Amino acid sequence: MTDPTRDLLPEGLEDRLPQSAAVATRVERAALAVLDGSGYDRVRPPLIEFEKSMAERMDGLATRRLFRFVDPVSLRTLALRADMTVQVGRIAATGLSGKARPLRLCYAGMVARIAGDQLDPRREALQVGAELIGTDTAAAAAEIVELAIASLEAMGASGISIDFTLPDLVETLAAEEFPLDAEQVVAVRRELDAKDAGALRAAGGEAYLPLLYAAGPFDEAVAKLAGFDGSGALASRIDGLKKIAERVKGRARLTLDPSERHGFEYQTWFGFTIYAEGVRGTMGRGGTYRIGGSDEPATGFSLYPEDLVEAVKASEPAREAVFLPLGHDPDAAARLRAEDWRTVAALSEADEARALGCSHVLEAGTAKPL
Amino acid sequence: MTDPTRDLLPEGLEDRLPQSAAVATRVERAALAVLDGSGYDRVRPPLIEFEKSMAERMDGLATRRLFRFVDPVSLRTLALRADMTVQVGRIAATGLSGKARPLRLCYAGMVARIAGDQLDPRREALQVGAELIGTDTAAAAAEIVELAIASLEAMGASGISIDFTLPDLVETLAAEEFPLDAEQVVAVRRELDAKDAGALRAAGGEAYLPLLYAAGPFDEAVAKLAGFDGSGALASRIDGLKKIAERVKGRARLTLDPSERHGFEYQTWFGFTIYAEGVRGTMGRGGTYRIGGSDEPATGFSLYPEDLVEAVKASEPAREAVFLPLGHDPDAAARLRAEDWRTVAALSEADEARALGCSHVLEAGTAKPL
Repeated sequence: MTDPTRDLLPEGLEDRLPQSAAVATRVERAALAVLDGSGYDRVRPPLIEFEKSMAERMDGLATRRLFRFVDPVSLRTLALRADMTVQVGRIAATGLSGKARPLRLCYAGMVARIAGDQLDPRREALQVGAELIGTDTAAAAAEIVELAIASLEAMGASGISIDFTLPDLVETLAAEEFPLDAEQVVAVRRELDAKDAGALRAAGGEAYLPLLYAAGPFDEAVAKLAGFDGSGALASRIDGLKKIAERVKGRARLTLDPSERHGFEYQTWFGFTIYAEGVRGTMGRGGTYRIGGSDEPATGFSLYPEDLVEAVKASEPAREAVFLPLGHDPDAAARLRAEDWRTVAALSEADEARALGCSHVLEAGTAKPL
Repeated sequence: MTDPTRDLLPEGLEDRLPQSAAVATRVERAALAVLDGSGYDRVRPPLIEFEKSMAERMDGLATRRLFRFVDPVSLRTLALRADMTVQVGRIAATGLSGKARPLRLCYAGMVARIAGDQLDPRREALQVGAELIGTDTAAAAAEIVELAIASLEAMGASGISIDFTLPDLVETLAAEEFPLDAEQVVAVRRELDAKDAGALRAAGGEAYLPLLYAAGPFDEAVAKLAGFDGSGALASRIDGLKKIAERVKGRARLTLDPSERHGFEYQTWFGFTIYAEGVRGTMGRGGTYRIGGSDEPATGFSLYPEDLVEAVKASEPAREAVFLPLGHDPDAAARLRAEDWRTVAALSEADEARALGCSHVLEAGTAKPL
């Protein structure tokens, strides 16, 4: 039999029913509370923007992924937001351009994309994150990585791992240590991403071969990378990575994959991916970048807690409720609510406490177990 | 001089910058906490649905007002939500059809419409509300009106007024007391809405003339209405109104405009509009209705707190922050945050406490005023 409700929502879009909605709300607030505590002000950009403004700031990122439509008011193409980072960058460059730097902003909201992918068929997701604007130093990156971990912990994630990368590694090495022309840079980056030794050699990237073997647990991998960096072209980056790792060691398992670029096309010197135990795929990512348009340096992270919500929701305790019989004393009910009880009022003789999910009943002014 | 940022967002769409975003967040959470306390479970429907499913449940409500676009996956027309009530009705009729009634659900989220109007140019707004599903009695309506008031109070509104109406008044009277044919019902409703005595008489609605003068403060207006209702056709409605008024008197200024229909086209026997002091226009509305598709009775309200956010934001206290100098003790900083202090860490020698909005500085393990 076909489920008659199956076709009610488009593929990749879904309702969060009470249990899942409660966890999503708790998770979102927990992360925002961590960020607020560390000085990050929430901003709330609109769901819709001019496609052109969104695309420019996405630095060429595929606008094909956006839900787009023509605005009958402006007759221009609008797009539904697929990423709040670009919106926060726009706000930093416009409405908050006069505020002192570093400027700390955070956000939480739904984003949508026109097509899911094999790894994740969702077309709508909750995005929560923070942007530290005006700086992209190791100190900034350490604060951002630490906050990403603290946010995840507050959300209820455990077994957190972070994989560091150096997105501009090849460009940096090609500039002096192991010269490559512009075309070769592209090819070497591609083959390092593909982890294909033969193709890397064929692309003129023989000198880069050791990078294929420099990935792994942070301490070992960073030592290998330092050994490979004879001329010290990477010294400041390696030093930065060590500072970041020092700040968060013990709170997350750290790895380094220095030549990983997939998903970090727009990052500058530093990028990271976050994972949590029991959650398939990545929880989020972050790094240093330059804001599209203004070119201001910035550091930030985004988390997508959808899978975490599903993973933790079974273990979330249900909220207990007190049944208020017909003709109950409203002041007694208000007192219970002030003590953080949840109340469910009978509206007719037919209403029954247990059927309505109550564990207690209001009797003689107090909550009595059923 | 033209403001270069003026054109960055489409007309009717705007960013909430930190001060306003903080108030919007507080206001949204305050209302949700009230609703949660009274047994309303939050649901989180998607931003996008099939236009057809949304339109059917909007009972013919102008789909012209929706942002629409073709889905490349299903090749069907999708729409951005303009009202979460219809989404909650869909959830009640599908995913939660097996849950005991009355079913209490609440929601908060952004909704968008393709065109603003003269009264409100906004094309995106925060909608917060509650739906009590499976019942549309006076007891249900009293709970909903009381919760609308409690939500508004928690949001920070004062001087709340509620205007009651009886959306199916003319149909009820036309069925027995003052007979009208179907065409006349439409005409009489229209002229009562327009408050045009001459046209009302011309439409064959002479008997309905007293309704034009039955609007005003609740006690007087309901007495006039009862006097007009010779045969008792309205007795149960009048009784219902009195029960609702009894429940909330003293918490809001109550008025009755029994023939007001504008905005209540899809309500059944009861509707209400909410106002707050210092906020132009309405804060929201609610009433009894039947869920599109399932035809289940329901009672609910929606609030649109955009103007309230602007009205109260100037009086919201700023959050105090403690500056953490370079090389500070991270444990001391964590202790301050655990005591609900907000901290702002220096990232370089250039960072200055006051410029970053701090009122205190971490010194010898404690927050010292600057």
